[in-house]
Amino acid sequence: MHDLNLNSTIQIVSSVTKDADSISLPHNVLETLKEHTPVIVQGTVKGRQALVGKESTSAATGGKSSRITAVEIKLEDIQPLNTLPSDLIVASGTVFPPEQRHLQIRHDSSLREALKFRSKAARFIRDYLVDKHDFVEIETPLLFKSTPEGAREFLVPTRNTGMAYALPQSPQQYKQILMASGMPRYMQIARCFRDEDLRADRQPEFTQVDLEMAFANGEDVMRTVEDMVRALWSQLLEIKQSDEAFSRLTYDEAMSRYGSDKPDLRFGTDIRRIEYMLPVDLVSKIGPLTDPIVEVVKFSLSDDIAAMRQFVNAFMDSPEAQPFITNPDGQPGIFIIDSRRPLQGLQSFGFEAAEQLEEILQLQDGDLVVLQARKNAPFSGGSTPLGNLRLALHKAAVKQGLLPTPQGFAFTWITDFPLFSPNNDSDPGQGGSAGISSTHHPFTAPKTAADVDLLLTNPLQVKADHYDLVVNGVELGGGSRRIHNAAMQEFIMRDVLKMTEERIKDFAHLLAVLSAGCPPHAGMALGFDRLIAVMLGKESVRDVIAFPKSGKGEDMLVKSPTRMTEEQLKTYHLRLRDG
Amino acid sequence: MHDLNLNSTIQIVSSVTKDADSISLPHNVLETLKEHTPVIVQGTVKGRQALVGKESTSAATGGKSSRITAVEIKLEDIQPLNTLPSDLIVASGTVFPPEQRHLQIRHDSSLREALKFRSKAARFIRDYLVDKHDFVEIETPLLFKSTPEGAREFLVPTRNTGMAYALPQSPQQYKQILMASGMPRYMQIARCFRDEDLRADRQPEFTQVDLEMAFANGEDVMRTVEDMVRALWSQLLEIKQSDEAFSRLTYDEAMSRYGSDKPDLRFGTDIRRIEYMLPVDLVSKIGPLTDPIVEVVKFSLSDDIAAMRQFVNAFMDSPEAQPFITNPDGQPGIFIIDSRRPLQGLQSFGFEAAEQLEEILQLQDGDLVVLQARKNAPFSGGSTPLGNLRLALHKAAVKQGLLPTPQGFAFTWITDFPLFSPNNDSDPGQGGSAGISSTHHPFTAPKTAADVDLLLTNPLQVKADHYDLVVNGVELGGGSRRIHNAAMQEFIMRDVLKMTEERIKDFAHLLAVLSAGCPPHAGMALGFDRLIAVMLGKESVRDVIAFPKSGKGEDMLVKSPTRMTEEQLKTYHLRLRDG
Repeated sequence: MHDLNLNSTIQIVSSVTKDADSISLPHNVLETLKEHTPVIVQGTVKGRQALVGKESTSAATGGKSSRITAVEIKLEDIQPLNTLPSDLIVASGTVFPPEQRHLQIRHDSSLREALKFRSKAARFIRDYLVDKHDFVEIETPLLFKSTPEGAREFLVPTRNTGMAYALPQSPQQYKQILMASGMPRYMQIARCFRDEDLRADRQPEFTQVDLEMAFANGEDVMRTVEDMVRALWSQLLEIKQSDEAFSRLTYDEAMSRYGSDKPDLRFGTDIRRIEYMLPVDLVSKIGPLTDPIVEVVKFSLSDDIAAMRQFVNAFMDSPEAQPFITNPDGQPGIFIIDSRRPLQGLQSFGFEAAEQLEEILQLQDGDLVVLQARKNAPFSGGSTPLGNLRLALHKAAVKQGLLPTPQGFAFTWITDFPLFSPNNDSDPGQGGSAGISSTHHPFTAPKTAADVDLLLTNPLQVKADHYDLVVNGVELGGGSRRIHNAAMQEFIMRDVLKMTEERIKDFAHLLAVLSAGCPPHAGMALGFDRLIAVMLGKESVRDVIAFPKSGKGEDMLVKSPTRMTEEQLKTYHLRLRDG
Repeated sequence: MHDLNLNSTIQIVSSVTKDADSISLPHNVLETLKEHTPVIVQGTVKGRQALVGKESTSAATGGKSSRITAVEIKLEDIQPLNTLPSDLIVASGTVFPPEQRHLQIRHDSSLREALKFRSKAARFIRDYLVDKHDFVEIETPLLFKSTPEGAREFLVPTRNTGMAYALPQSPQQYKQILMASGMPRYMQIARCFRDEDLRADRQPEFTQVDLEMAFANGEDVMRTVEDMVRALWSQLLEIKQSDEAFSRLTYDEAMSRYGSDKPDLRFGTDIRRIEYMLPVDLVSKIGPLTDPIVEVVKFSLSDDIAAMRQFVNAFMDSPEAQPFITNPDGQPGIFIIDSRRPLQGLQSFGFEAAEQLEEILQLQDGDLVVLQARKNAPFSGGSTPLGNLRLALHKAAVKQGLLPTPQGFAFTWITDFPLFSPNNDSDPGQGGSAGISSTHHPFTAPKTAADVDLLLTNPLQVKADHYDLVVNGVELGGGSRRIHNAAMQEFIMRDVLKMTEERIKDFAHLLAVLSAGCPPHAGMALGFDRLIAVMLGKESVRDVIAFPKSGKGEDMLVKSPTRMTEEQLKTYHLRLRDG
């Protein structure tokens, strides 16, 4: 067993003998076995690699791999080790329901390979950071406490009536404490938890590559992470990125040009702001908004105007278009350029505006011109309707064969996020009573001295020293330089966010730690599940997690969560509210 | 920053200049700084290693290390980056309260070194298993489900009324599922949770090195782990263990000879069973037990009889002796051999027994002879009172200088544990209504075919294919060959443990997985916190955990757990029972 290469494919050679009637003959046993039966085989090794003694194998240990070794064994004895239920039929390519995740893993070699790749990537990251860059991997507690920054944390009740731990959304506070503890480079591949309505591709528990550096600023962290990502791509995917630094966009640029704080830069359909060139009376007709921002994006997909009409109609009839049609700020305007009917469509903007648009956008026959209005005010959230529409139209065009499937990896850093965002109705904000919340978390430092000056007078204009790493429209992770000074941290909590004294007290430990001479520090976290999914070109993180939860947060295989028993509730001095 | 060796010690050289009055002069700033203040220093590098440009450092990044490089910088500018509170006094060797864990880490280089060693050991283990032995590290869910095997698991309520996840005590079930999923070698350095009254050195969350191998038995696992442990000791501690296999003791041998299933083999004070040589009427006088086992252990500490008397009296007066004095099965008998008063003490056993004892134990002047009775019946638990007394007396003798402090590492495997243990009053057992519980967990396989035959007739006599790795009286971990056949697993649950149908249903997922042709498999888990503590000779796992919980399960630094708010309770449809 110890000398067996687990990626070997073993071929058993056996043939009918004279005593063909005896059912105990190895050959006859072999013939009665169902596929996927684990067996012990005894025989003589032939073929390429000499193996000594008794070896065991099964279809389960085979499968395609880059390290296949073919071995041939002449059968002398075979013994089945378990039975397969007769109703279990495993056809090649079967997609099993989530209840049978074990069968999916066993029969889907791409899923097995993804899990192996994940293991390899984790080792690579640790080697890179711990071995080559002096980071120390430090395990931080998962039984943490509930703090105001975390509205959506799972609780873990204790036997001490009314007291509970909370599962951390990230090791943020502990890693900052480590920076004040004389551990200048921390890393951890850490499990994190988030109890929120699960979006398409979110899991209630997820893994992040977490790091923090003392005596460092955002540039140090970005350089470290960028170099690591480059090494990951070149070593594990054998894709060499250019040695040039990843491109950078400020949050404002990203939002203006792509309507998204995680733009996909593999296609260059830039958005432009145009309300300034439109007649005032027209702007008021575009939608219900007063003094809106009006933006435009152009798609050049084909010069076949009829085909384009068909494409647009098909898109607008598809479910993907629903959110845009029902946008309370007004529907998009979509125009198809047709030089035989000059300015038709666009002419509703008036001659001057239409001409200006034509010139700026360099319009040609068949071009799609898409307009959308939005509120002219700071907002929270990572995308505009036009940004989303840009992506949806691009996807539809790729699907229709009007555009090639984007290839490669386009990395970019998004910087200069707003430090605070206005609270909105659906998310009342955890910050305090100031009507604003920290865009990321209350420990993020303002970017410059000028930003510090704006904290009291115009907090929504303050830029954060925060950075996100984005590739192909996916946010791989984010980080920031942190506030390392207790007075500044307390000022932001009390005077800017206007947290109550009680809430500030929940952070007393952090303030005490910062005040004990904590050095400047900055860090970052990369979503590990998403990183692996992106590297392998998988649609969903579920394809790179051994036992993912369903959209409802259930593990369909083991059937979790389960109903609490009366005894369990008693142990934790709890009672159900509705019953 | 990137070129700075983080283990460097940097010496700042500065001297008074003519303008000694200006407080902004670098030298004067330097003189006003408190110790442990983070600073940015600008200057010219002298000394051994040339560093380029601006460098930052602090006392926090220094400290003793094996890679110290001395660098000298002539001060040109210095800028403090944070302030220390004036009431914070840090004398060398200060032991900080747990509330100031950050200061303890910063000022206790042995704690920092322990955390670095831990990080290094984790990397070594992953390299060993993943890189060299084809294991795949697979992250298994922490939001698991409550199952009958786990009476002491934390619950994590969900927003779905009455439904909860449970935090796993180990990845046991998921790793067995992986064995059925065609991932033949699994490993994980996994966080585990246990909600129980915290013993001296237990944490509610802990880390284990978890592994499982398909098409493997206990011998394969023991060999893999033994080789890895040997490599850990030789590579990280530079202590070469002999190439001989670790010694082995069966559970019965360990309990008979050392009164413990995790014996410290560094000292050879073996226990012997002697009730057969004692007169029947005497045995009945030894304590309240009917037909007890009577055992004896000898200590040869000194031939100074008066000194031994003093030692015994001091021990019996110490708090350590309390459990033995109050043992409901009878106190120990302790005799000091004195040839001037032949057979005194032992003579109460009658001439024949006393002579036999003298001969068997080869008694000499000053020897301590310690007797203890215990019930003659299978029992649950890992030690006998005499086993504990053996350790306590040994410890007292070392403290008194009567014995040398044990040195080195004595590894041993304990095998052949009973598969089941009788339930006792304090632990009613989670198994079922049969009055017995699985000694470890219900997935452990019986050792031999003969053991399988005993399952229904005499379950307490059935040996498990379970093995513990013990070093110096500490259990490093345990493992077993698992039941890989669904019918056998169901038989043990239903017919041997007599679980209710409802409880068996909680394991339906595991039975389904085993029935899908699961290969034979075996595995093990090593307590990682304990492993590191043992390797570094630390008394407590708290000395190798960055942020350990207190004896009450509290994190004194961040102050967790905290009181649940009414809003939080509402979110999870819960209410407190007492209020």
